[in-house]
Amino acid sequence: MSTYAIINGAFVAEEAAKILVSDLAVQRGYGIFDYFRITANRPGFLDDHLDRFYHSAAFMHLPVAEDRAQLKQLITGLIEKNNLPDAGIRLTLTGGYSDNGYTPAQPNLLITQSPFIFDAGAFHKGLRLITHDYQRQLPEVKTIDYLQAIYLQPQLKARGADDVLYHQQGALRECPRANFFIVTKQGEILTPASNILKGITRKKILAYTDLPVREADLQLQDLDDAAEAFISSTTKEAMPVLQIDGKPVGDGRPGKITTEIFTRLLTARRHQ
Amino acid sequence: MSTYAIINGAFVAEEAAKILVSDLAVQRGYGIFDYFRITANRPGFLDDHLDRFYHSAAFMHLPVAEDRAQLKQLITGLIEKNNLPDAGIRLTLTGGYSDNGYTPAQPNLLITQSPFIFDAGAFHKGLRLITHDYQRQLPEVKTIDYLQAIYLQPQLKARGADDVLYHQQGALRECPRANFFIVTKQGEILTPASNILKGITRKKILAYTDLPVREADLQLQDLDDAAEAFISSTTKEAMPVLQIDGKPVGDGRPGKITTEIFTRLLTARRHQ
Repeated sequence: MSTYAIINGAFVAEEAAKILVSDLAVQRGYGIFDYFRITANRPGFLDDHLDRFYHSAAFMHLPVAEDRAQLKQLITGLIEKNNLPDAGIRLTLTGGYSDNGYTPAQPNLLITQSPFIFDAGAFHKGLRLITHDYQRQLPEVKTIDYLQAIYLQPQLKARGADDVLYHQQGALRECPRANFFIVTKQGEILTPASNILKGITRKKILAYTDLPVREADLQLQDLDDAAEAFISSTTKEAMPVLQIDGKPVGDGRPGKITTEIFTRLLTARRHQ
Repeated sequence: MSTYAIINGAFVAEEAAKILVSDLAVQRGYGIFDYFRITANRPGFLDDHLDRFYHSAAFMHLPVAEDRAQLKQLITGLIEKNNLPDAGIRLTLTGGYSDNGYTPAQPNLLITQSPFIFDAGAFHKGLRLITHDYQRQLPEVKTIDYLQAIYLQPQLKARGADDVLYHQQGALRECPRANFFIVTKQGEILTPASNILKGITRKKILAYTDLPVREADLQLQDLDDAAEAFISSTTKEAMPVLQIDGKPVGDGRPGKITTEIFTRLLTARRHQ
């Protein structure tokens, strides 16, 4: 049985889900997206993701033909039709079929669903990061621009790293698909404040008012003093960072606070 | 009669020239391209463009299935089939149909042709630029990333500008689709040396050894003293810049040296 996608409101089998090469996503890398998880056929934190989707679209001057109720109806229809209970759904809005290959036209809205099963066991393995001086352009918008991240993949592999941590001349930013946190020796939970994509999972963590969590202007040297570090995202929840540029973080094992936040996030997703 | 494109070696009518939405160009803005002009059904400076195309592909870890002879054969076939004597041909190489939406797969090669007639009359009208602090990522590669340029289009329109001139904290770089030159009051012809895409037209201009033309580290304040300014590209040849950020360049009219270079470029294209 085929998995279905939705292109501009119409269901289409995944293997036929195509757009013209004149689309500005293909011609000029112009588009935005969002991604949320489906557990037991229910979308997780949908309104948070739709808020961000509409914000990204408006920021990039891309009109969305569907209002929120229509978009939710399409998403519900796709979930029913595909019946992939553990999955991710991606909404992509492109620059559309431009006449001159440069000026945006009516955007194309692509809704795709792929199986996704969360691997809780990955928590104990943790992650190894390398740092790289790079500032994402238009950082607070979830654009389709991952040119730098994908370009760096062979280098990550060669250096035995799982992911890259961007900094701008020493000021810590984010990973390509996740936000970054450190836990100080004093137990403060800190995450870069600006020039980043503000993740939905990051937002949940910042809302734990019973924990000493806050935004801060973190620098590369703050990594040396960190007791713990972790990244947050919809697909990773909170994953411990055990090594950065070959040096262990803290004692090199998943820390207590990271474990606490991970547990809270799993519980929140089950109970939403 | 339909215009044809070529997708992975196969001719396809333009209105059916599609790729799956799983392509990394659509998912992650990952791809490279090149563009050259066809005059009287002959491609202009084809080897220069193919050199750059293969260089961009290799830099971005994207293998090209076709060798140069095969690629030329496809291009010749497309020119014959379309018979659009004045046109542009674009070679686009994408990240391909990635299994996980992140790791590049076998690239898709898209060859498209569109009518293009050079407007020599635009020379006298000239161009108005605005400056903007932005450094293109992976600048020496012709990637499909024009996110910043397209994002800025409404701002250009609002400010009555034709194009944007990027600088990095004052260091002049380039326009999104063209290189930038100034002519000093002493008659020197200078163009930014680094962190730019090195255009084929720029290369032709730098090869005029009888003219005092050279690469230099130009700054924003060098614009105040310029006698002339112009941009160079395959579609513009050399076009005078008459105004930058609302201030006239030199006497605000197309200058002698810009005119001389424009004339040489037109002649070179006719005689190649």
